[in-house]
Amino acid sequence: MLNFTYYTPTKVFFGANEIDNVAKIIKEYGFKKILLHYGKSSIKTTGLYDRIIKLLVQNNISFLELGGVEANPKLSLVLEGVKCVKTNEIDFILAIGGGSVLDSAKAISVGSCVDYTPWNFSIKKEVPQKRIPMGCVLTIAASGSDMSDSCVITNEETKEKRGFNSPLNRPIFAILDPTLTYTVSKYQTACGVVDIMMHTLERYISKGEDDTDLTDNIALSVLKTVLKYGKTVIDNPTNYEARANILWANSISHNGITGMGRPFVMSVHQLEHELSGMFDEVAHGAGLAVLWPAWAKEAYKSSISRFKRLAYEVIGIKPTNDINKDIEDSILKLKTYFKELGMPTTLREFGIKEEACKILAYNTTIKQNRIIHDVIDIDYQEALKIFEISY
Amino acid sequence: MLNFTYYTPTKVFFGANEIDNVAKIIKEYGFKKILLHYGKSSIKTTGLYDRIIKLLVQNNISFLELGGVEANPKLSLVLEGVKCVKTNEIDFILAIGGGSVLDSAKAISVGSCVDYTPWNFSIKKEVPQKRIPMGCVLTIAASGSDMSDSCVITNEETKEKRGFNSPLNRPIFAILDPTLTYTVSKYQTACGVVDIMMHTLERYISKGEDDTDLTDNIALSVLKTVLKYGKTVIDNPTNYEARANILWANSISHNGITGMGRPFVMSVHQLEHELSGMFDEVAHGAGLAVLWPAWAKEAYKSSISRFKRLAYEVIGIKPTNDINKDIEDSILKLKTYFKELGMPTTLREFGIKEEACKILAYNTTIKQNRIIHDVIDIDYQEALKIFEISY
Repeated sequence: MLNFTYYTPTKVFFGANEIDNVAKIIKEYGFKKILLHYGKSSIKTTGLYDRIIKLLVQNNISFLELGGVEANPKLSLVLEGVKCVKTNEIDFILAIGGGSVLDSAKAISVGSCVDYTPWNFSIKKEVPQKRIPMGCVLTIAASGSDMSDSCVITNEETKEKRGFNSPLNRPIFAILDPTLTYTVSKYQTACGVVDIMMHTLERYISKGEDDTDLTDNIALSVLKTVLKYGKTVIDNPTNYEARANILWANSISHNGITGMGRPFVMSVHQLEHELSGMFDEVAHGAGLAVLWPAWAKEAYKSSISRFKRLAYEVIGIKPTNDINKDIEDSILKLKTYFKELGMPTTLREFGIKEEACKILAYNTTIKQNRIIHDVIDIDYQEALKIFEISY
Repeated sequence: MLNFTYYTPTKVFFGANEIDNVAKIIKEYGFKKILLHYGKSSIKTTGLYDRIIKLLVQNNISFLELGGVEANPKLSLVLEGVKCVKTNEIDFILAIGGGSVLDSAKAISVGSCVDYTPWNFSIKKEVPQKRIPMGCVLTIAASGSDMSDSCVITNEETKEKRGFNSPLNRPIFAILDPTLTYTVSKYQTACGVVDIMMHTLERYISKGEDDTDLTDNIALSVLKTVLKYGKTVIDNPTNYEARANILWANSISHNGITGMGRPFVMSVHQLEHELSGMFDEVAHGAGLAVLWPAWAKEAYKSSISRFKRLAYEVIGIKPTNDINKDIEDSILKLKTYFKELGMPTTLREFGIKEEACKILAYNTTIKQNRIIHDVIDIDYQEALKIFEISY
């Protein structure tokens, strides 16, 4: 078991109608002038925008607004946010939306305390030391960004999508109201289910000894719950129990607890960042759904004991005498599950040309002058193989 | 699922030799003058005391000391600590020890910010609003006090043991070094194993719907790990993997995550506090080991679905057609497990007279003008029955 630091200071307010406490919570922290940061139209069409504005006005909380965050949040909008915070003496940023909005707010939060571009954090040229406090109202169960220390931004000029981790990226509070997720589309809900699974799965299946029993048991628990409710939230979007369990899984899956004592590499996330960084139309969860089975096929023989528990305890494969076959069956079963959720199963379905595999493999490895070391080492050749299997 | 607030801001530094970072960590927080709070002789005989003093001196950290914390930490020493903090401008309290030392330090931490006795917090007459920051080096896996919001103090004048919960009770950091637990005696180790189990078990078997799947799965996970390694830490006290998993379970079990969305009552803890409050020789974990099976016998028929999962998924009972028998078998099997750990199985073994059952039942209920409402309601008659079954 590796030594680790566990630090999840985000205060989570979880449950139906917790959103009604948003102004009360902000006032308790004593913030004076806040920036509302959100996406395009959805919070306006669902009525959430009006609901929050009403509460802020009633409670005399002064605010500015910056909307327009897109999927794969863009550096240009982050820079606009930084300018807004600096010139208006904003002391708190409230992100209202899904992972993209939260990550954009996180980049603004740390970017507002430096005199260089926050892209420097993404390319690991600088490390954040300060921030403007940031909290969130999460509207999509997926990214786990509400409790995570990660922040992923896309530089639209270079077409690069890069993440950086910092304790300062953890929101000071998160309002998680399952009823706010009722209106998420089936496709986005499915992308979320996959993303949640992957945050745990990529921690669970990592290099190292099988000496992290508690962490492993928790990880397998989270996967069981997500698998159980994944279809319900799509078939019956207003099922509170299912939405609530999935939403809480969203947080637990990426706040660190499912990987304590293990290496943190997230190989498939690395591959996917190249994919959705290059092709804006690829939703992160959909990209993961396509890439994970291909990666797993390549990787399982290097991590039999962990794939085995996954197959038998979570995916429900009945043990035979052929462990390799059992694991391959489990990978196929999970791929089928993703398909049943409405996810694509090949890169082709995104309308991507096969030649792109080479560019993606190059971008993942040689361009960044790296090999991804994890359960299997991913160099250019290995990356190419995974992208080609996925095609 | 009940709405909930999840807030675990304690920064955990976990792993072998993390203790060597204690001075570095304190310096990073910028504290100027600290109070070391500890128990009787054990940290001196193990060399931990010398190790910490050396690091503090080498790093020019100014400190005072207050040792002498006993099991079931006493209000009188807390008051001494409060006086010391107030008169010496202490800005940080470092607790070094097990749950008793940590709870004593927590009471000093909040007690130093008021001009009345901190016992007022214990009897719910006042609510803490401020504290002197407090951190800890945990030496026994048991109480989970390193991440918990609870603090239990014994008033030796009134012979009352009372707990209070507050977000201010959570240490700002916790150093969890499994190698420091190698020297804990077999008996104390066993008491710890039981206490850890009970923090989760008492959250898991609580009133309410079966709609908290994720929380339940996590709870059952923790119980599996504790059951798996409970004997190993006793038979092979320097097994790092076992000590590390048990130590991490100690934190997870009581930081809140195993009960989110469920009512938090902890009936058996309430009964046990009367027991060890009245009889100082009763170790908390040993008291729980005796009382839980008696309570479970009374309670299981009111919570069949939850006892069932416990029996089949954790305790390893093979399902038959008689669910009641299966559950009774599982309770017996857990009782036997406690015995194998070296725990007593009856109150008689503590040398307590049978008449004490009436006083204990009275103290638990009528004296405090309450009935404990949970899976079963515990009034005087019910409390008496449980104490008598335990006898």
